Amino acid sequence: MLTRRQFNHHLSSALVAAAVAPRSLLAQEEPPVLCRPTLVNTERLWDTLEKLSEFGALPEGGTTRLGFSPEDLEAHHWLMEQLRAEGLDVAVDAAANLRATRAGERDDLPALWFGSHIDTVPRGGNFDGCVGSMSALEVIRTLNEKDVRTRHPLVVVIFANEEGVHYGRGLFGSRALAGLLDPGELEATDEQGVRLADWIRRYGGDPARIPEMTPPPGAIHSYLELHIEQGATLFERGLPLGIVEGIVGIERYRVILTGLANHAGTTPMEQRRDALVTASKIILAVRQIVTEEPGRQVGTVGTLSVEPGAPNVVPGRVTFPVELRDLSMEKIQLLAERIRARAAELAAEDRVGFSWEPVSSHQPALTDRRIRGHIQKAAEELRAPTLTMPSGAGHDAQSMARLCPVGMIFVPSRGGISHAPEEFTRPEEVACGCEALYRTLLRLDAIERLG
Amino acid sequence: MLTRRQFNHHLSSALVAAAVAPRSLLAQEEPPVLCRPTLVNTERLWDTLEKLSEFGALPEGGTTRLGFSPEDLEAHHWLMEQLRAEGLDVAVDAAANLRATRAGERDDLPALWFGSHIDTVPRGGNFDGCVGSMSALEVIRTLNEKDVRTRHPLVVVIFANEEGVHYGRGLFGSRALAGLLDPGELEATDEQGVRLADWIRRYGGDPARIPEMTPPPGAIHSYLELHIEQGATLFERGLPLGIVEGIVGIERYRVILTGLANHAGTTPMEQRRDALVTASKIILAVRQIVTEEPGRQVGTVGTLSVEPGAPNVVPGRVTFPVELRDLSMEKIQLLAERIRARAAELAAEDRVGFSWEPVSSHQPALTDRRIRGHIQKAAEELRAPTLTMPSGAGHDAQSMARLCPVGMIFVPSRGGISHAPEEFTRPEEVACGCEALYRTLLRLDAIERLG
Repeated sequence: MLTRRQFNHHLSSALVAAAVAPRSLLAQEEPPVLCRPTLVNTERLWDTLEKLSEFGALPEGGTTRLGFSPEDLEAHHWLMEQLRAEGLDVAVDAAANLRATRAGERDDLPALWFGSHIDTVPRGGNFDGCVGSMSALEVIRTLNEKDVRTRHPLVVVIFANEEGVHYGRGLFGSRALAGLLDPGELEATDEQGVRLADWIRRYGGDPARIPEMTPPPGAIHSYLELHIEQGATLFERGLPLGIVEGIVGIERYRVILTGLANHAGTTPMEQRRDALVTASKIILAVRQIVTEEPGRQVGTVGTLSVEPGAPNVVPGRVTFPVELRDLSMEKIQLLAERIRARAAELAAEDRVGFSWEPVSSHQPALTDRRIRGHIQKAAEELRAPTLTMPSGAGHDAQSMARLCPVGMIFVPSRGGISHAPEEFTRPEEVACGCEALYRTLLRLDAIERLG
Repeated sequence: MLTRRQFNHHLSSALVAAAVAPRSLLAQEEPPVLCRPTLVNTERLWDTLEKLSEFGALPEGGTTRLGFSPEDLEAHHWLMEQLRAEGLDVAVDAAANLRATRAGERDDLPALWFGSHIDTVPRGGNFDGCVGSMSALEVIRTLNEKDVRTRHPLVVVIFANEEGVHYGRGLFGSRALAGLLDPGELEATDEQGVRLADWIRRYGGDPARIPEMTPPPGAIHSYLELHIEQGATLFERGLPLGIVEGIVGIERYRVILTGLANHAGTTPMEQRRDALVTASKIILAVRQIVTEEPGRQVGTVGTLSVEPGAPNVVPGRVTFPVELRDLSMEKIQLLAERIRARAAELAAEDRVGFSWEPVSSHQPALTDRRIRGHIQKAAEELRAPTLTMPSGAGHDAQSMARLCPVGMIFVPSRGGISHAPEEFTRPEEVACGCEALYRTLLRLDAIERLG
């Protein structure tokens, strides 16, 4: 269980990692949370987060609760019970997503969907998708407590295997819903030889019915997701709420440089065709080209492999990915073309063979302008300052954007740390996000159809 | 067996790798070998090289005959037979080196030693240590054929595990002889759990006696080694013989850069502490600092590892070796200090932690000036042009330099390629090196003691 003591542990771990943030985490006191929730129950919500943290908790702190694992399945069952206890109609869909429906006054209206995911990365934290998932439960509890009946049906959705560490592809449940699975994806087997389709059945899903599960246009009123930011932008500025403009597009390329492996002792410097020297020039060019353009785009070379790879051999072949992210696909493609052209030049100068191939491309997903406006109004009701910002990370909301208008709310991540045991968002910040979600839902409920 | 057909195969493989050499390998005809051996038997020597290539031959070309392996042991037994057939007194010393002694007229004089090694790297070639080893046999055969009796005893030595791929440390046999083994080195076990000491016993060695095996000063007249160059210097210039000035010293350092691993989507460019970006700057600085100084020194970053190492994670930690080689240890240390200082500056600018630690240091070994003079005279007898040059690769001669004056003769490596199936030296070039060895030995035999 994520006890107060463990939170203190998390705090000190975060201090160790403090160098991430120009604004020092070492300050004795953190600034107050600029938001005062009045409707949702901060303590109850926090207790629920602590309870969820028990599933897959690691003795040394943090949690490993991979999508499609015994720990995740146990948490999934526990959450179904909590939602049933609130009177919801709880079911598992064909792709093993958990769906809990609260009837509205008018069942002819399309449902308002909201939720997130509860799976984690290996040695992950307890906030990532948990904050949005437990806040969805807290929204239901608050509605019940206050005896609020919405006009539209409400659907709490907890998507399966969002992280996608298990089976290697993220956003599984939401992509299945939106009809975005790759052919053969369900036939994938894991290290234990278990097929993805078998795991889906263990959750109560029905892989055979996945092709028919995509709802027709207009069937879903909108999808709202609360999530931690996973970056340091809100934390740095001391802001409690982010209004997400969209989820960035991502393009990945693979660069292969072919020089000539040779004996490091017997090959004079001027005769070398050292693929790692050329790779170094290209890595610096990626950073330069990405940063010289104004905007919030990012470009990353996250790993690199050298062959043959020995201290006494001139590198003959180097392979690395280049990843570009931005809200504008045009900008991504412009940057990619500049990088490709510059890299080809650098390789030619060094007499090194150069190949550049696209590996994957994900379109940006913009959130709905009207929903952003309602989140802004909800924040104003809370007197909480906001920042409108892109999401650099992928989220189930980007699959949902294929089906309906979507909105996303961010809460701060201390030090910008995520996917690590040190992931942390303060109780009042979590509750602030939850209440913004609650208030936005009620505002959206006033609009018959957004379609 | 290394048939003519296989040599043709090697030739075409070398053509594929032709880009190594500014002077194109694609030329229809190679220039003639500028050396005409008259004493040794070119064909017999080549046939012996072909026979040796059978031990550990790979179906796809090349040879894997690791030191301390069944293939190497079989070749070792075969070579002992050949030397016994020439009337030599053949023995295995405590460290599993093969030693074959041919009595001299005066057995009170110290012996002239010569030889090399017959082990290879994985997927290696058939020339590396083989040329010097088979030439040592051919020298004995020529002496016998011509009924030449030397004044000094002659010792053909074939050193054990020169490559050191198995058990991870090179120059094993010669280091053992020179008393240069590390404490505990004999206790090392390989992947199959076999101790090095056990392998030594399989060859007929006696690990317990290794500590007493180092000969006293003056016990060995001199050590001569013929070897392929392993670089392209002679090949480029069309020269048949190199006279080695010395074997370069080698220092290795380990650089560890500690930035901060973070989500590539949510971490703005200006907040990153990307260890791979800093590593790229340092790799370019190594090349710049090494090349801006006149001379033949080399500096190499041969491999690199990135953690966590995913396309979507900003690199948090990068580790790589820096290797420097030169005939002057002072120059190596000067360059190392410049690189260290510049790297520390670059890391500090990027807010990345920097550590630099020495990993290993091997002193340069200079060859004997008088022996170099005699090799030169021998080459003049052969009317063969020579080049005086350093050896960038390590050789058993560097251990022997602790025990006696040493000399080394190089023959060309086509395209500078070595440690690969494409390794190749033409029959006339091999024979030219062999005859230079023969003539140098007879010249040294005229000198009672070099000591």
